[in-house]
Amino acid sequence: MKDIETLDTLNQLKIDLQGDVSSPLGFIAGGMHVGLRRKKKDFGWIYSTTAAAAAGTYTLNRFKAAPLKVTEETIKNNQSLQAIVVNSANANSCTGEKGIQDAKDTQAWVAEHLNLSKESVGVASTGVIGSFLPMDKIQHGTQNVLKEQYNQSEFFNQAILTTDTFTKHLSVQVEIDGITVTIGGTAKGSGMIHPNMATMLSFITTDAKIDADTLDNCLKQTIDNSFNMITVDGDSSTNDMVLGLANGQANHNKLDTLHPDWEKFEYALNFVSQYLAKSIAKDGEGATKLVTAKVKGANDVAEARKIAKSIVSSSLVKTAIHGEDANFGRIVTAMGYASEDIEPSQTNVSLCNVPVVEDGMSVEFDELHLKKQLEADNIYIEASVGNGEGAASAYGCDLSYEYVRINASYRT
Amino acid sequence: MKDIETLDTLNQLKIDLQGDVSSPLGFIAGGMHVGLRRKKKDFGWIYSTTAAAAAGTYTLNRFKAAPLKVTEETIKNNQSLQAIVVNSANANSCTGEKGIQDAKDTQAWVAEHLNLSKESVGVASTGVIGSFLPMDKIQHGTQNVLKEQYNQSEFFNQAILTTDTFTKHLSVQVEIDGITVTIGGTAKGSGMIHPNMATMLSFITTDAKIDADTLDNCLKQTIDNSFNMITVDGDSSTNDMVLGLANGQANHNKLDTLHPDWEKFEYALNFVSQYLAKSIAKDGEGATKLVTAKVKGANDVAEARKIAKSIVSSSLVKTAIHGEDANFGRIVTAMGYASEDIEPSQTNVSLCNVPVVEDGMSVEFDELHLKKQLEADNIYIEASVGNGEGAASAYGCDLSYEYVRINASYRT
Repeated sequence: MKDIETLDTLNQLKIDLQGDVSSPLGFIAGGMHVGLRRKKKDFGWIYSTTAAAAAGTYTLNRFKAAPLKVTEETIKNNQSLQAIVVNSANANSCTGEKGIQDAKDTQAWVAEHLNLSKESVGVASTGVIGSFLPMDKIQHGTQNVLKEQYNQSEFFNQAILTTDTFTKHLSVQVEIDGITVTIGGTAKGSGMIHPNMATMLSFITTDAKIDADTLDNCLKQTIDNSFNMITVDGDSSTNDMVLGLANGQANHNKLDTLHPDWEKFEYALNFVSQYLAKSIAKDGEGATKLVTAKVKGANDVAEARKIAKSIVSSSLVKTAIHGEDANFGRIVTAMGYASEDIEPSQTNVSLCNVPVVEDGMSVEFDELHLKKQLEADNIYIEASVGNGEGAASAYGCDLSYEYVRINASYRT
Repeated sequence: MKDIETLDTLNQLKIDLQGDVSSPLGFIAGGMHVGLRRKKKDFGWIYSTTAAAAAGTYTLNRFKAAPLKVTEETIKNNQSLQAIVVNSANANSCTGEKGIQDAKDTQAWVAEHLNLSKESVGVASTGVIGSFLPMDKIQHGTQNVLKEQYNQSEFFNQAILTTDTFTKHLSVQVEIDGITVTIGGTAKGSGMIHPNMATMLSFITTDAKIDADTLDNCLKQTIDNSFNMITVDGDSSTNDMVLGLANGQANHNKLDTLHPDWEKFEYALNFVSQYLAKSIAKDGEGATKLVTAKVKGANDVAEARKIAKSIVSSSLVKTAIHGEDANFGRIVTAMGYASEDIEPSQTNVSLCNVPVVEDGMSVEFDELHLKKQLEADNIYIEASVGNGEGAASAYGCDLSYEYVRINASYRT
């Protein structure tokens, strides 16, 4: 796991960087190789020993992949899941009615195998768009869900990856009613990553006691500060999905927004989502650096988000950071086309803590010093754009030769 | 000049690919080296022997560069220009009040040298953001405007380039009232190119007789079908500008929308703009291919434009085309996040004339045949998204290693 900032600003969490979706009470995860990829694991599952309240957030892409449609419908009807299966290498997207049927068959096979109702099973896919799932291999996978030799959560963390170079997971613990509650998460990137849900799957589990609607609301707010604030290449995929499961096994008093420890839970969920989101950005295809853009002084949060996202989305900013070049003009340019409300004369920008623009004008700085700072793995861009209350952070990565190499030859 | 499609569909034009801004009656262009770049020409001018009606379109970036502000104000007040000077290598952007003063000094020096009023001189800059213009070199340039040895229009075409690999220019002739009218144009790209005016300068001259307001309206409409439909990397610069000059020396009856030959003029101006825009896209930084996305069946033109631009803007589509990979899933993905009105089941896509998606589903195609087609320099993507009347074309380029190389090391 690469170095991702883990700033528990409120000092309320016990953080386990080895943790994942299997960390909370009652959750088991596993994965195996069924033959969708050459050698790597390509089929994984999450299972809760008891029914879990379920919430989901799905891509806004109009071409929503079949497994998303099926899982969204399932959660809408049942608000609860007990198992999720995920395959990599094939997105089951642009596959029409047959794709929907394939996703439903997968769901039914898992349900039958685990003796659950179909409405207790979620399905997810990631990979190449426009091919049918090889259903014999998928069926083979479904028959092996929960087989002991495959029940290692690290196998799950691996099985959902595509071009990712490292697994992305952690867990945190927080006290609710004096009882330890665990939240775990596992995610994958790493191309087609952009605000509004990208080619990205993320699964968050918890043993907290919370109903599906409350979980759903909390998850959606969390996502706006995390997964919706990352970008790798500006493409929002057909398969993005974040699923949350809460099985209540920690057995505290049920959480809702009036619970005295509600904010602690919210904080912990936010922390997990932000960590996973930053991991995805840092592992963007071909990325060598994590870029964080913090914007303040905007009229409102929405404007701050637009400006911050624009900075980390700009190909010219991304290549300059790859080249470790203090090309602040590109940062200002990306801000200037993001928002009509920006007032140039009130705009200040610093790069790696070095002021480069003040009141909309370039300022002199020590080129050699800044060049040295730009060699770091984590690059911080901070900007203020006025006197407003709006602030936001966005996360991205540099744009490298490697990005082009990966994507010029991905499908074939 | 690389091969750009020149389809005079109405067969009304006499096209001269050697032509440029100096082709219409009464226009002279030239350029020289003043020392902003190491060796290449970096300072150029356009001059009309009589005052010309002037119109301009400027970047929407909030950080509008100083020369744009000065030229915009000048044209607004005077609606006429007789000379334009342009420097490359330095954008005079993010330079505050001093930048404005530098642009005004440039304007004043040219006016004095040519014995014109200041309000008859336009200024433009392109290059690195955030440095002050070296005014001694600029002043030297202004003192040499129209010096005979520099009055070669090819020098102008070269002097405005930055990372462009070829000059971009042409002229066309059309009959108005039975009199030959010439429209000439010269443009530069080639990074920070995106819809809504990019790092791009374009100058269009004509000896047609037309007032400034009519020219302005016509230019703005033209731009929506040409310069605003190209993208290289999604960044809209602080310095984009298209200027149009009409000196009336062809001496036909004044053009307006009621003139019997109005549509011929409009068509010719559109043709010049589209050709220059496509030249810029084709010469995008690191580009090896021109990509044209034609969308039809949208609810309206605005929606068709959004979808077409999204296709040519997608880094994943651009890398796939660079790799000559028929990754149609990425095309569909880019369409799906562009517009909420797309109906997947009514969506058809063809790539190099090979149908790849029908009714939202992938269709089988001959991989080897399509792979062969993708080796071409001009790649066509055609999509229909429903039964609406909206149609539009957008122009872009592939994304190559070379793009990363150029931009990881541009400034320093």
